[in-house]
Order: sequence, then C-alpha cells, then structure tokens
Amino acid sequence: MQDDALSTASSVNAARLLDSIQTLARFGAREDGGVDRPALSSIDIDARRHLIDRALALGCSVRTDACANLFFRREGLENLPPVMTGSHTDTQPTGGKLDGCYGVLAGLECLAALNDANIRTRRPLEVVAWTNEEGTRFQPGAMGSSAFTDPVLIERYMQARDSEGITLAAALAAHRDAFPSLATRPVQAQAHAFMELHIEQGPLLELADVPLGVVTGIQGVRWYAVHCKGAAAHAGTTPMHARHDAMTLALAVRAELSALAHELGRDDTRITFGRWTVLPNSINTIASDVTFTVDFRHPDASVLHAFDKQLDACVERHAVSREVLFAHPPVEFAPSIIRRVKDACNALSAPSMNITSGAFHDAMYLAKHCPSAMLFVPSRGGISHNPAESTGDDHLVLGTRALAHCLVHLCNEAP
Amino acid sequence: MQDDALSTASSVNAARLLDSIQTLARFGAREDGGVDRPALSSIDIDARRHLIDRALALGCSVRTDACANLFFRREGLENLPPVMTGSHTDTQPTGGKLDGCYGVLAGLECLAALNDANIRTRRPLEVVAWTNEEGTRFQPGAMGSSAFTDPVLIERYMQARDSEGITLAAALAAHRDAFPSLATRPVQAQAHAFMELHIEQGPLLELADVPLGVVTGIQGVRWYAVHCKGAAAHAGTTPMHARHDAMTLALAVRAELSALAHELGRDDTRITFGRWTVLPNSINTIASDVTFTVDFRHPDASVLHAFDKQLDACVERHAVSREVLFAHPPVEFAPSIIRRVKDACNALSAPSMNITSGAFHDAMYLAKHCPSAMLFVPSRGGISHNPAESTGDDHLVLGTRALAHCLVHLCNEAP
Repeated sequence: MQDDALSTASSVNAARLLDSIQTLARFGAREDGGVDRPALSSIDIDARRHLIDRALALGCSVRTDACANLFFRREGLENLPPVMTGSHTDTQPTGGKLDGCYGVLAGLECLAALNDANIRTRRPLEVVAWTNEEGTRFQPGAMGSSAFTDPVLIERYMQARDSEGITLAAALAAHRDAFPSLATRPVQAQAHAFMELHIEQGPLLELADVPLGVVTGIQGVRWYAVHCKGAAAHAGTTPMHARHDAMTLALAVRAELSALAHELGRDDTRITFGRWTVLPNSINTIASDVTFTVDFRHPDASVLHAFDKQLDACVERHAVSREVLFAHPPVEFAPSIIRRVKDACNALSAPSMNITSGAFHDAMYLAKHCPSAMLFVPSRGGISHNPAESTGDDHLVLGTRALAHCLVHLCNEAP
Repeated sequence: MQDDALSTASSVNAARLLDSIQTLARFGAREDGGVDRPALSSIDIDARRHLIDRALALGCSVRTDACANLFFRREGLENLPPVMTGSHTDTQPTGGKLDGCYGVLAGLECLAALNDANIRTRRPLEVVAWTNEEGTRFQPGAMGSSAFTDPVLIERYMQARDSEGITLAAALAAHRDAFPSLATRPVQAQAHAFMELHIEQGPLLELADVPLGVVTGIQGVRWYAVHCKGAAAHAGTTPMHARHDAMTLALAVRAELSALAHELGRDDTRITFGRWTVLPNSINTIASDVTFTVDFRHPDASVLHAFDKQLDACVERHAVSREVLFAHPPVEFAPSIIRRVKDACNALSAPSMNITSGAFHDAMYLAKHCPSAMLFVPSRGGISHNPAESTGDDHLVLGTRALAHCLVHLCNEAP
C-alpha cells in the first residue's frame, strides 16, 4: 500500500501534466494569456469534449448528472464507495489557466500515473469536473457541487439566467445534446472521501515560502448589501447643514462595520466593501441612494454570528436597511482526510503548513456529503481571477504528486 | 418713467403667466408631472416654435445666432443697445417645469404687459432663450450664453456629441432647417444690461420666508476627478495587511478634502463628492480603481485658489492623481443692476434679501458681456432638477412683476 502510493506519486509525469494545463487553456484563450470560459458555453463544451476523450483514452468510464457535472471513473478492485477528486473548468471572464482546471487536470494525471505504474486500487477513483463553480455566468456559484450534495437545489437553479437571458435549463439541454451518449451517475451515491487540489489564490504560502498548504477548513462568510437613503439636491445651492447625503451616511456605516469586523475578528478578519452603486451619480448632485456590499469572512462561527447581530444594530442605529445576499458557515474538513494530506506531504519530504481557505471551493459543499479536505499550492504574488495567475512548475508537480499519494491511500482504505 | 415701471408691473397678468408655464411644460411632459426636454431635440424645436409664434403674435421680431439662441425683440423708441432678459428652455432628464422656462416666460409676459399698458420704452427689450444650459444633452452646459459672449467657443462646441453620437453641428443644422426664415442676430452687438429671473433651486429664501432674492453674484466652482489606484485581489484569501484597496485609499483622500474644504471655506463651503466609479465593483474582489468627483464652490476666489493648491498637495501626499474637469471664478454682478433689482422689490413693497447663487446660470456668462444681475424666487423644499420642483403662484407672479419693473427702468436709462 505504502509502496503503491509512493510509486504512483513518482509516476506523475511533469511534462504531461504541464502540457495538459496549456492544452486546456487553449479553450477560451485570451490574448493576454488568460482564459475566458463561461460555464456550459460552447467553449466550455469543447473543453469538456477534450477532457472526456482523454478520460476515455485512459480507460475510464464517463458519466454526468442533472447539473452536467462530469465524472471520470477508474474502477477499483472492489465494489466500494469511490474516492473522488476534482474541481471545475469554468473560469472568471478575466481568469487564468489554473483556478479549478489545475485540480481537474491533476486528478486526470493521477489516473494516468496509476495506469503507468500498473496499480489497481481497492476502491474506484472518480475525477470530477463540477459545473459553474465561479458563478460568473449563472448565480449562485458552485452550482454543480451544491446540487450534487443537495439535489433539490437543481429545481431552483434551473431558473437562473445568464446576462443574455439564457436559463440554466437551456444550457444544460445544450450540454445533453452535445453528449447524448453519456450515462447518468445515480443521485446520492455516497462517496468515501473527496480531495480537492487547488491554487491558494492568496499570498500566505508564498510569504511563508512553503510549497504545500494542508487546508483544514474554509472560512465562513457573510454577504450583505446595505442601502442608504438620502435626498438628491443641487451641489451648488444646498448648504451643508441642509443636506441628506446618502454617501456621507454610507461612509459612516462602512466605518462602523469595518471597526466592528476588526474588533470581533482580530487577525483573522477579512472585510471587504467591494461593490458600490451611487444614484444619481452626478458631479453636481448630492447622492440620494447608495448601496454597498459587505463581504465578511472568519473561520469562527461565533464571530460571524456576533457580526450579524452587531451589523443589524448598526443598520438600525443609522436608519439604513440591509439585505442578506449569501451566508455560509465555516467548514471544518475531516481530520481523517487532513491526516492523509499531511502524511502525503511528509512521505514526499515536502514542507507544508496548515491553512484555512479564504476562498469558496467545491469542497465546501462536498464536505456535507463525505469526509473531505483540500491541498493548496502557492499562487505567485497571491494573484488569482486574473490572466497573470501563476504557480511554479515545481509546485504544480509537487502538488499533483501529493494528491496522488493521498488518493492511493484513501482508495485502499477498508470499508 | 416711474409710472411706466409700476404700470407695467401691475399689467403682468397672473393667469396668462401661469398658463404659459403649463403650456410650455406640455412639450416633453413626463408622466410624473416633470419635463424631459433635451436641448435642440425635436421636442425642444416644437417648444421653440410655440415660443416663436407667441413672440410674433406679441409684435416682436425673432432672430437667432450660430448657437441657436432665440432673441425676441420689442423695439424701443431709440436705436440704442438693448436690454436683455431670459434664461433657457432645455431641461434635465428628470426636470421640472420652472428651471429656465420661468425666466423665458416671465420675459415674454413682460413684453405682453408692456403691450397691454401701451408703453413704449426708450431702448429695445430682447427676451432670450439660451441653448443647452443644462449640459445634459451636450457638454459643457451654458453653450448658448457662453458662445454668445465668446463666439470663438462655437468651433469647439461643434464637435460635442450627445449619447447617440449626434454632434452639436448636426443638431444646429436641424434647428436651421426647422426655422429657415429666421434672421441672424449680429455677433457682438453689445447689450445695455442683462437680467435673469430664476427659481432659487435651493432652500435659503424659503428658510428665511422671503419671497425675492437679489442675486449679487455666483459662487466660483472647481470640478475635479480624483483617480485612486489599488490592486484587485480576492476578498477571502487576501489578509488585511496585504491589501491595496483603492476604495480605502479614496475614502482617506475624500475625508482630507472634505476637512480641507470646511477649514478653508467656513460657513460658505459647498463640497460634494457626487460621482463614484469603482472597478471591478464586485462583492468579493478588492477594488483596484476608484474615481470620484469633487465639486467645491465658494464665493471667494482666494478660497478657491487655496483649495486648488491644497488639493494638489493632498493628491501628491497620497500618490493618487487628479484631473481638472471644470473651473469658473466667482462672478460679482454689476452694482448698478443689483440696485435696480432692489429698487423694484422696494417699489412693489416686497421683502427681499441678498443671495449668492450656488448654481450656474446663463447670467454667469452674460456678466462678461454687459452689466448683469439676477432675481430669485423661492423653490419649495429647495427642490430642483426634479419633477417635484415647484414655486408658489404668488411668488411666480411677484417675481415677474419685479422683473417688469426692473426692465422698464433699465430700458429707459440714458446712453
């Protein structure tokens, strides 16, 4: 068993892995070196056809489900619940080559390495490409993984429309038409474990000069929109004392929420006020309406709850209103899988550190379905969602080797 | 002479004036009671045809010029430079019935009152409708009055395009085609005086419960755009200490500029940060670029100059950049005309107070051409550029009577 894990890891083919990343990046390539591949677009369907062909060539069976997730399955020696790994292939409009794709392609490389090493595992291994993780074409994001773990969600998602008015239902029909022969994976077939390999999308590994991050959980998040009402008035004729400037009000609320977040969250605080809508947004008119978003993240659920309560009090104190846009509790990954990830790092003599993910990932939903964890490799400059997104080749290969080691151990675990 | 002024004022016909305001408001009427009449649009041309017909019926000659300003002229007894009055007929997209139109229609009512009272004045009296004062369809605003006083400007204005790409040159050609028989008023025919009657568009007269404002000048103004550069990064993965949030930077600059404006300008300060552009304006991405506008107004030129210098220092200190969008020095109206306005208020036993205009007006440019002043009537709630814009009927009539009194005196002044 130990030998199988190490020999699979050493069978990971660096050139083949790196080439597969460049090849997939051609689907939706941007002139600036980035990738623009909206979920279930014709470009994404072409990319999926490429992945399906590759999986079939590796001897896998290929299945799909109601949300067009793709499952590439390498059978095991026994008919046991499978080990799953994977990520997504859709990108941000100004995305890079690695966010999501790296996890899928590293999974396929592990399948190839197992073939090359002529290793059979006890359990089946499934590499998955989850649909619409980015949430750029259809909202919300992580549709595929959340619908996999909670199938009733698909009914609601079907109504989602992209910016051209196309529904998810229509996009899924186009996907079915493109791949009419794909079998359907049974709903709720319980998996044994899920592992997601991903770029960090932040600066912590690079700052610490550590090549592997053992992800112990994902921060919880609150998304709010805060609406502040003033009165539009002429910038020249309205004395300062007679103004009701919605922007001045909004900035007072923002300052309080920022102070509050830092007081509650201390060093782990992540607070962002990223989207602003100002009306009438005219040079010489005092703002009548300002709406801004709050993105607050923290690994501690009690801090998130305290923030919710104090935000409500702040909003009431200032007589503004707020809307909850999204909320997710912190996710703690399974200690059993985290241990496998650490063992893999140690077995490869690769320095690693524990890290909490600041970004959402499909693993956030898979953690509800089966024991799950993640592995990070460094992002140069912490840059992501950007054509300049990059990771050193040595880190990309090392991450894939650690994934292979980990997957083989999980695949050989007893029921 | 004294009798002529008073009898013209008492010949102002309240019903006719108020009816003319409602009639003009039908051109571009909005369902919410407001008016949307872009400069030189087909609606504005229809409105102009209505005004021309009315002026011809009053026995006036009608002329135009290179910027489509309309001049309705009642001849005097002598061939002396005319007295001019008027304002504009274009509106904001969500405008009211009074901003601009009141001044033009009150001027025409004065012509009708002079006819009714059978009074001949020594000087000609010209009522003017200036083109594109609001600057909504074509930028900059006050095109007609500024091109009248500084005819070389028209060359630059000709290239201005509206949101549909139509040039001012094309819009002026359409105006000429609509009124091919209009004579052209000679460029630079020096006027004796200019008087503009307007709604206050602010709350000061209403707050003081005074029906007439003797406008002694117009505040100077500075318009800037401040550009702040940060780095887009993931809201979840980027620690607070590693962020370069363009919005955080912009708010620090805004706070300094606000404090600076109040310190320099004291009670006369008007500072507005009205327009905000945030990129990428996404909930979960730290802002990479924020641009906001600064509108600073003050009646004292030295305060405006000090603001300019300290703004530059502030911008340099924060390593942001700024663009000058517009600047105009404070305007002091002519004491001789201001005295005439005060005399008119006194002669009608109407309470009045001195006021500095916070808004721009065509009179800002006419003041460069000839001795000029303005008269204000109250705006209910200080509301303007809004369908709810309104002024009491008694105030509208009183303002017109005071204008009539003032114009007759000016028209009878010796060369």
